[in-house]
Amino acid sequence: MNYTFSDRIAGVPRSFIREILKVADNPSFISFAGGLPNKDLFPVEAIEKATIKVLKNDGKKALQYSASEGFLPLRVYIANRYRIKNNIDINPDQILITTGSQQGLDLMGKIFVNEGDHVLIEEPGYLGAIQAFSVFKANFIAVPLHHDGLEIDLLHKALLKARFKLFYSVPNFQNPSGISYSEENRQQVADLITKAGTVMIEDDPYGELRFLGTRKTTFKKLMPDQVVLLGSFSKIIAPAFRLGWIVAPDEIYDKLIIAKQAADLHSNYLGQRIIYQFLTDNDIDLHISRITKVYGSQREAMVKAIRKYFPKETDFTLPEGGMFLWLTLPQGISSMNLFNMCIEKKVAFVPGNPFYTGKTDVSTLRLNFSCSDEKTIEEGIGRIAEVLNQIV
Amino acid sequence: MNYTFSDRIAGVPRSFIREILKVADNPSFISFAGGLPNKDLFPVEAIEKATIKVLKNDGKKALQYSASEGFLPLRVYIANRYRIKNNIDINPDQILITTGSQQGLDLMGKIFVNEGDHVLIEEPGYLGAIQAFSVFKANFIAVPLHHDGLEIDLLHKALLKARFKLFYSVPNFQNPSGISYSEENRQQVADLITKAGTVMIEDDPYGELRFLGTRKTTFKKLMPDQVVLLGSFSKIIAPAFRLGWIVAPDEIYDKLIIAKQAADLHSNYLGQRIIYQFLTDNDIDLHISRITKVYGSQREAMVKAIRKYFPKETDFTLPEGGMFLWLTLPQGISSMNLFNMCIEKKVAFVPGNPFYTGKTDVSTLRLNFSCSDEKTIEEGIGRIAEVLNQIV
Repeated sequence: MNYTFSDRIAGVPRSFIREILKVADNPSFISFAGGLPNKDLFPVEAIEKATIKVLKNDGKKALQYSASEGFLPLRVYIANRYRIKNNIDINPDQILITTGSQQGLDLMGKIFVNEGDHVLIEEPGYLGAIQAFSVFKANFIAVPLHHDGLEIDLLHKALLKARFKLFYSVPNFQNPSGISYSEENRQQVADLITKAGTVMIEDDPYGELRFLGTRKTTFKKLMPDQVVLLGSFSKIIAPAFRLGWIVAPDEIYDKLIIAKQAADLHSNYLGQRIIYQFLTDNDIDLHISRITKVYGSQREAMVKAIRKYFPKETDFTLPEGGMFLWLTLPQGISSMNLFNMCIEKKVAFVPGNPFYTGKTDVSTLRLNFSCSDEKTIEEGIGRIAEVLNQIV
Repeated sequence: MNYTFSDRIAGVPRSFIREILKVADNPSFISFAGGLPNKDLFPVEAIEKATIKVLKNDGKKALQYSASEGFLPLRVYIANRYRIKNNIDINPDQILITTGSQQGLDLMGKIFVNEGDHVLIEEPGYLGAIQAFSVFKANFIAVPLHHDGLEIDLLHKALLKARFKLFYSVPNFQNPSGISYSEENRQQVADLITKAGTVMIEDDPYGELRFLGTRKTTFKKLMPDQVVLLGSFSKIIAPAFRLGWIVAPDEIYDKLIIAKQAADLHSNYLGQRIIYQFLTDNDIDLHISRITKVYGSQREAMVKAIRKYFPKETDFTLPEGGMFLWLTLPQGISSMNLFNMCIEKKVAFVPGNPFYTGKTDVSTLRLNFSCSDEKTIEEGIGRIAEVLNQIV
């Protein structure tokens, strides 16, 4: 039988990273390709205890259908944490629990993006956002990142050229680049975006994973009415629950709820109850400090190995947190070529291509440091360098 | 600030049922308005045991990111059950685990429906489907249900008038009507839909909840290439996991996976592991028989009470399973008026209006019998009848 699909789905590519991950999912591989948190740091026992408590105390309710907005005590917890950590007042009624923060992108695309609407995105940009907005046939305009945030001149130019429906940004330890916006850059970006009247999606799945430097001002504080802030439990507790959240101004929230109901009624309620119980019974800051300590050391090991093995002309970012480092090969060498050669040496990374909306065959690549120990990192970076040094 | 939303979201109403449920969520209310399974039948202890087992044996993996397709052993289990119960061969590679079967509707809308595309739906129709396809600006054409399925003549006429992108149907114990398609009706519908070349969504969340009669042939068996079959664990285990599935032909599956990745990457993986463990360690057929015994008695009590208290001219369906019964008031009395009067007597149901795509102020209403015991059902139906008898 011949199927006639919608116009919107024709243009969305299958995830390239997914295909890479399949190749690299072999135990003999050293893979810097994934975007996974380190599973050895998951609080398995504490989650088991929290689950038993929830099921013993309130099992019937915890297994039933629930409100689309999400479990209220969990939303209150999130609001409190924003007040303590980010010095910002958030009303729990402006928090919607989502099925991972990826769903936040889907819902925002649904309620904002008409076919052809301009969406401003970082270059390189988060692949999941490119996929989510592509479904609604967004017209992407990318503004390059440099070491301390967006290129302000180019942002300014882009905003003069087109009217944007959305501006999508990951200001802390960006995926894929690991770059964070400086305080100065945040203020400059906020000034321009405020003037442009563009709704900003501030996606912050990694913000808590800081191992160097100090916490920066959230855009939500700089432009509360204009920013939709996305958060996630995937990187600080565990991804398997698929639980994140959106903070949105009332008028946007009303539309999000309609879209949420149509999408999946509500998110995994037992998971919400377990996570709330876990947060209540455990010291999450202590837990996060364990994660950042490990990620920080692994990032150090990766930087050291790159400096030791890679050609001097290699450029790379120095992330202050998160899980990724971004590398630019010398002499415009194709990272896709390098990738294909590295696969034979059983070491993997993600070539930069899928993170661009308008470029192919780039010389950049993404390296993940959260999932490999220091020894493996030195070994893997060494293998990549060996291949690279043959072609430089 | 003024927000400019997408065209698609402007036309989607907030769920009316949701608003009703808020009113009826008062303990002093007798509510037949909900669509909830009976929480007293949730296998809380068995789920606790399954969770402990999963976390103890494979906790780190069970908390990590996972495949978009879903947990393979769970998909194999679902395929086996279809072979045993429905005598139909399903390849596990054609099964995609979704965030509730509601997500199946969202994904199908995304990959098939362009603005203005015709979607064929039952009248009355499932509200969640109306909401999901409305987001993609579907043009609904409704074909009435009668006691044993779709009105064949009217289906035939509708198919002559327009070319349909999708046909959405709940052939077993339909929500809201409780109606099931007879074997003869299924064959007639399948013949017409096959000729029309329309993709059919066979939504079957209630199929296992049969307390009378015999299991009918699934449409998936009658037209394997043309049917996308949706299933759910919400009614046979518990809804809080938000886990359902889609069975789709390969070409459709490829598009669904792209849309799934953009929507939420994958569904709650810990939940998938728990449900699989639960299904492995327990007799699900025994568990289902406990549910259907209770629902069957409660449906009996409701029918008895309607016959006892309601005017003779009242028409209503006699469901052989599921959770709902559909009632038509005598003399074209507005069910919305009745609803407003009943709220004062602290008894609630869902007036028929939201289940129609082209009618308002109807004299039909939906009664849920899964969540109230027999005594409460008699009391509640009595209260409604008391109000009704004042205005007949």
